[in-house]
Amino acid sequence: MHDMLSAFSHSDASHHTSTHVVALDLGGTNLRAASIDHDGALHHRTKIRTPQSDDPHAVADALAEAFDACAQVSRQHDAEVRAFAVAVPGAIDSKDGGRILRMPNIKALQNFQLGAYLEKQTGVPVVLENDANAATMGEVWQGAARGKQTAICLTLGTGVGGGLVLNGALWRGAYEAGGELGHIIVEPEGALCPCGNRGCLEAYASATAMRRLYIEASGASANDANEEINAHVVYQRAQAGDEHALQTFQTVGKYLGIGITSLVNAIDPEIVVIGGGAAAGWDMFVEPLRAEVKRRAFTERGKNVEVAPAARGDDAGLLGAAYLAWQKLGSV
Amino acid sequence: MHDMLSAFSHSDASHHTSTHVVALDLGGTNLRAASIDHDGALHHRTKIRTPQSDDPHAVADALAEAFDACAQVSRQHDAEVRAFAVAVPGAIDSKDGGRILRMPNIKALQNFQLGAYLEKQTGVPVVLENDANAATMGEVWQGAARGKQTAICLTLGTGVGGGLVLNGALWRGAYEAGGELGHIIVEPEGALCPCGNRGCLEAYASATAMRRLYIEASGASANDANEEINAHVVYQRAQAGDEHALQTFQTVGKYLGIGITSLVNAIDPEIVVIGGGAAAGWDMFVEPLRAEVKRRAFTERGKNVEVAPAARGDDAGLLGAAYLAWQKLGSV
Repeated sequence: MHDMLSAFSHSDASHHTSTHVVALDLGGTNLRAASIDHDGALHHRTKIRTPQSDDPHAVADALAEAFDACAQVSRQHDAEVRAFAVAVPGAIDSKDGGRILRMPNIKALQNFQLGAYLEKQTGVPVVLENDANAATMGEVWQGAARGKQTAICLTLGTGVGGGLVLNGALWRGAYEAGGELGHIIVEPEGALCPCGNRGCLEAYASATAMRRLYIEASGASANDANEEINAHVVYQRAQAGDEHALQTFQTVGKYLGIGITSLVNAIDPEIVVIGGGAAAGWDMFVEPLRAEVKRRAFTERGKNVEVAPAARGDDAGLLGAAYLAWQKLGSV
Repeated sequence: MHDMLSAFSHSDASHHTSTHVVALDLGGTNLRAASIDHDGALHHRTKIRTPQSDDPHAVADALAEAFDACAQVSRQHDAEVRAFAVAVPGAIDSKDGGRILRMPNIKALQNFQLGAYLEKQTGVPVVLENDANAATMGEVWQGAARGKQTAICLTLGTGVGGGLVLNGALWRGAYEAGGELGHIIVEPEGALCPCGNRGCLEAYASATAMRRLYIEASGASANDANEEINAHVVYQRAQAGDEHALQTFQTVGKYLGIGITSLVNAIDPEIVVIGGGAAAGWDMFVEPLRAEVKRRAFTERGKNVEVAPAARGDDAGLLGAAYLAWQKLGSV
């Protein structure tokens, strides 16, 4: 966090043969942690259920325990643990002790000074970052955008997350409210988005949207469509040749292409990376996506912008959080 | 230009009481130049017709003559002229002697090394910048976005130009193809844009679009609509209460709001500045614009983003070009 920079100082603990940071990716269901060195290698992993508690301390203590579990193994291997990097599904005020401003899926932490609390519990500097931003940084550091300075990342999950890396640095916006690429408007009077707006990219490219588009395409009522229909099932049906499933991915690809065109015309990135669980349908949506960008982008370079699948899967958030910690430690 | 940085060195010409740069804004019809000091004050102006010649040297020599006219007055007032800053209506390869890559309205200069030629003719370092980028920088330095670090600027003219300033620096994109904010998509199967795509912001918010929207709204055929209908006439009719003209500006404001929402959700600027000749209709389109952003933006801050009219009119491009020259000279 910005106000904790002073806590980051080079250690002279010369008996350690290496240094690690512990990175943690906090989800509504599970939390995953790993010890990560400054080359991006993962040395130890742990995964536990996220406590379903109203008490912020109960949730935060689970994070601290995951830190301890990883840190202990690092220390057993003579690695010094230098920081705790946490990717969270929400917005953070890094200037106010790492206070959680918004976290719809883990309401217990809302308004809690998570950063300050974890520093006290772990004894190391804590870096907090939004999970979509962390995943973007992870793909740039060690994934599909490795070696690139300017990248746009979309994460297709329950919603659509986004992140921007510009000239090698995460772009958070003037008020840390930027990078909401799932809320680029692609169909102004289109489907209602969970954010309340109509026609956001999220309303056409999330797992939730894939389910809705398939139900619409197949003419089934929402009642007929039983629980089993989700993005993965739609993908399987598309692979089996189901025309409504194929049509669904055509629509997903078209709207991803429209949103990406707007971003490419404004930002001009070197690469667009698409990850997240619902990006499993890649081979079904990438052709209509590319066709749409080719048809619409303003420059020749934009028409042919590199679009690649994310390479680090669930580890992107861990890696990106770790990178941001290493960056503050001055080691990358 | 990037490769000319070495030519920028601090002068020790201590007999000069002040220093100026000459800035020039090249348009298809006219070119305007001024001597500008490092506080942004304009000391001398000149304006001439842009030569309608197929010979790049004829056009470039007119630029050099405008430089001389301003430089001469600066020198008469004991100001040393340190650089020539030129805003051009096109794309530049700053790494190849300031070669003009694309300039649809002044075709003579296409593929011409304008930067290198002007350095030879004027004897001072030359800075070239795209005019929409220069205007954005001008509004940030000395206009509506003064004091802001992160700004989005839209210029409503024959087309819609755009520029991004992020953390105080112009964002040109990974391949100098960014900032094409007129080509954010606001209506995917909407009106054809001059760029070939459908539904760009430019197709709903340029002067050309205002004319088209008015003709559509009033039910006049393109033939019935005589030459006199242009954005200014539509504005006058709206002021007089013409319902179709009012409806035109409602549509313009709505689509500006949609495009701005996408940009605000992605970039999170401190301010959005709208300039250009067709922004004269400001009081007709700003309410629907703000209503649309309020309805659609992702965060509370985004919903209430500052949207302001440009403050420096035609001088924004001159000022922004001058700023970029002063920046390279190390004086701002």
